[in-house]
Amino acid sequence: MDWIRIVDARKPVSAGTSCEVRGWVRTRRDSKGGFSFIEVNDGSCLGNLQVVAPSELANYAEQVQKLTAGCSVVIGGKLEASPAKGQATELHANSVRVLGWADPETYPLQKKRHSFEKLREWAHLRPRTNTFGAVMRVRNQICQSIHTFFHEHGFLYTQTPIITASDCEGAGEMFRVTTLDLETLAQSGGPVKYEYDFFDKPAFLTVSGQLEGETFATALGRIYTFGPTFRAENSNTSRHLAEFWMVEPEAAFFDLADDMRLAEDFLKRIFTDCLNHCDEDMQFFNERIQKGVLDQIRSVVERPFGHMTYTEAIEVLENCDAKFDFPVSWGTDLQAEHERFLTEQHVKGPVILTDYPATIKPFYMRVSDDGKTVAAMDVLVPGVGEIIGGSQREERLDVLVRRMAEAGLEEADYWWYLDLRRFGTVPHAGFGLGLERAVQYVTGMANIRDVIPFPRTPGNAEF
Amino acid sequence: MDWIRIVDARKPVSAGTSCEVRGWVRTRRDSKGGFSFIEVNDGSCLGNLQVVAPSELANYAEQVQKLTAGCSVVIGGKLEASPAKGQATELHANSVRVLGWADPETYPLQKKRHSFEKLREWAHLRPRTNTFGAVMRVRNQICQSIHTFFHEHGFLYTQTPIITASDCEGAGEMFRVTTLDLETLAQSGGPVKYEYDFFDKPAFLTVSGQLEGETFATALGRIYTFGPTFRAENSNTSRHLAEFWMVEPEAAFFDLADDMRLAEDFLKRIFTDCLNHCDEDMQFFNERIQKGVLDQIRSVVERPFGHMTYTEAIEVLENCDAKFDFPVSWGTDLQAEHERFLTEQHVKGPVILTDYPATIKPFYMRVSDDGKTVAAMDVLVPGVGEIIGGSQREERLDVLVRRMAEAGLEEADYWWYLDLRRFGTVPHAGFGLGLERAVQYVTGMANIRDVIPFPRTPGNAEF
Repeated sequence: MDWIRIVDARKPVSAGTSCEVRGWVRTRRDSKGGFSFIEVNDGSCLGNLQVVAPSELANYAEQVQKLTAGCSVVIGGKLEASPAKGQATELHANSVRVLGWADPETYPLQKKRHSFEKLREWAHLRPRTNTFGAVMRVRNQICQSIHTFFHEHGFLYTQTPIITASDCEGAGEMFRVTTLDLETLAQSGGPVKYEYDFFDKPAFLTVSGQLEGETFATALGRIYTFGPTFRAENSNTSRHLAEFWMVEPEAAFFDLADDMRLAEDFLKRIFTDCLNHCDEDMQFFNERIQKGVLDQIRSVVERPFGHMTYTEAIEVLENCDAKFDFPVSWGTDLQAEHERFLTEQHVKGPVILTDYPATIKPFYMRVSDDGKTVAAMDVLVPGVGEIIGGSQREERLDVLVRRMAEAGLEEADYWWYLDLRRFGTVPHAGFGLGLERAVQYVTGMANIRDVIPFPRTPGNAEF
Repeated sequence: MDWIRIVDARKPVSAGTSCEVRGWVRTRRDSKGGFSFIEVNDGSCLGNLQVVAPSELANYAEQVQKLTAGCSVVIGGKLEASPAKGQATELHANSVRVLGWADPETYPLQKKRHSFEKLREWAHLRPRTNTFGAVMRVRNQICQSIHTFFHEHGFLYTQTPIITASDCEGAGEMFRVTTLDLETLAQSGGPVKYEYDFFDKPAFLTVSGQLEGETFATALGRIYTFGPTFRAENSNTSRHLAEFWMVEPEAAFFDLADDMRLAEDFLKRIFTDCLNHCDEDMQFFNERIQKGVLDQIRSVVERPFGHMTYTEAIEVLENCDAKFDFPVSWGTDLQAEHERFLTEQHVKGPVILTDYPATIKPFYMRVSDDGKTVAAMDVLVPGVGEIIGGSQREERLDVLVRRMAEAGLEEADYWWYLDLRRFGTVPHAGFGLGLERAVQYVTGMANIRDVIPFPRTPGNAEF
């Protein structure tokens, strides 16, 4: 008998076929009519398959009636159109084989609902819950859309290094990577002998693949990186992870306008794919996690993004009636409250802010003709504020060198980055999107720790 | 005028269109007939577009005739069918704008051919060469095929953690991750105060996502990881990297036979996609890098893989006439020379070896009924030997606990891994493929450092 997955078994067209399903019991309910209803899930979709197990089964009393949440089963039978509401089919079982039991006394995932905080302690079991299964399927869809979108647009997937001796923005707090034995080192009395370390010099975990990505964009035209990045910030918030995934496209011969068009097309494609391919999961998030998240996503997809300069945004913020915790004036960095006001109250939709003051942006952003602003762009969306940040890069060697000096960076540390401007320099631009921020936005999940398989935060590298 | 990429400009169908191309000069040759030939590349394909630049151009003497390798240009004109061999079109320029010069006195990539060793010192510029451009396009195709194949087969892309307090096989040499200041630590006199370290305990870079992947497979059914993994081995060989990318599918309810079928379908799909979508690049590798690599790839795609048990393989090796550097007998690990003999001389094609002695395989592989072997499988291919390693996993709690004890592992360190067997355990299986090994195989590149953007090896974390 053919094994089919539950996502297929639940389709109306499957009614009438004999098959086998393999999965885990979610619930069991014994009917007085001489049979049991078993809800089985195999992770292929949110919904369970209802199994009708008759008491005639040889192991009915010994096994079927003892099934509890989490038990693994292989069930053979015939799929029939279901009279029950909310399901097209049900499986009339002629065999129920139990592969593994889950002692209800010790199995943590009983019917009682657990808080997301509690489930983080069982991060190895939480994908068995409805919410985390749905999160993982949506996360997978977003990843697939990322690759498909860039592939179709001629961008090459490029893996920039994780371990690096460079520090992208001369800023971020970085994790150190070493093979020195720390206990021995602590006893040594110093100084650190890097000649005994693996890379013969201090090495770190990357905070961004952008600079390395530029070396490939200025050779192959269009590339994107998509991999883990790291911040050693001691931030215990619902929006920060020490390890997260980031996608960073970079395109030669792109100016800021091209970059903004790419970002808008990209976001719309990801969100549209989630709406089209994750319907059941998205309905779940809309009903159980964040009411209205579907409308929020649709509003991003359906209309053209607005455009404002930073200077215009400051004028709006200075002259509006809203009360902000942080004061705002030309030259200050915008806070989430300002960004959310702009996208939610002022524009009432996604908006791209451009032309930020050079003083609050990194050295690699292109200085505009006014000498005060850079060709930066941030995409703001209702509900969170900034979701994408990008810029046209400074392609003029002399300007870049001056900006680096102003930022206190050593030219010698960036010799290879400067070479890109020494030899056949071209205008180019790119942006970055944090995968987990995007998953949070699409699913409405409140805490970023609940949209990644195993979150890394201060004090937590378990599993 | 519309900007088009050179991969499109070179198509016969483009002849007759007016357009703009943007790229980098590869060569310039001045004709006596009052024009220059400029070969331009933009990374979208291996081949260059030939530009015919007439002396009537306003900047002909001042700029066009000074163009050298590496200069960046924007050229407008009309694409015409080309009379020259090996190209369908050529661009008759009516404007040549120079964006960036590349001083031939200092630009390293002159016409003279450089060794791959030398190019590693210029890893930021080597994607501008024919070979590395081709490698990156094939590498991109393999990555796209990996995602597409698993997506189509219902596997969810799952990002397992990079930083971890676990050590997958209780073996591999691992990099340490810390936020402790090493200089301060060296002065401290010890012991190490982990309460001041970011994760409050020793943390490492992952050597495999398999164990964490199993937690998701035993909830969602089918998943795959695809991300960077790390080995702190002091191996300076053409086959080892300290940082490399690995793809690891894991499927619940799969036995070893299912696993082998998946591995064969997967490899064939990747190679077929390279043959179908990277024709020009593959021809280049076949002619310039490894003669016969195309035939080698085709031979993997075209026939069913052979199957042998380890025990059968040992018999063949013990009774053959070949001379080996390493002796072979039942219970020893096979060396590359043995594997290559089996696939190249004995089977004359890809072969999957199964049922290895338990003593030479990790604790998580399923022990067979004979008590001596485990349900392991290695896929061997002509030219390299092992390219994929996998197994059915031990799903029986008591057997797994015994195997861990034999391997000297602490149960407490693997409580969550054991939970998967305590609660609804299921048969499951998976395998691992190193991305760079696959790229090496498809391209014929001799050194693994030349198939990854920025190789990390002992003493080298530059860029």
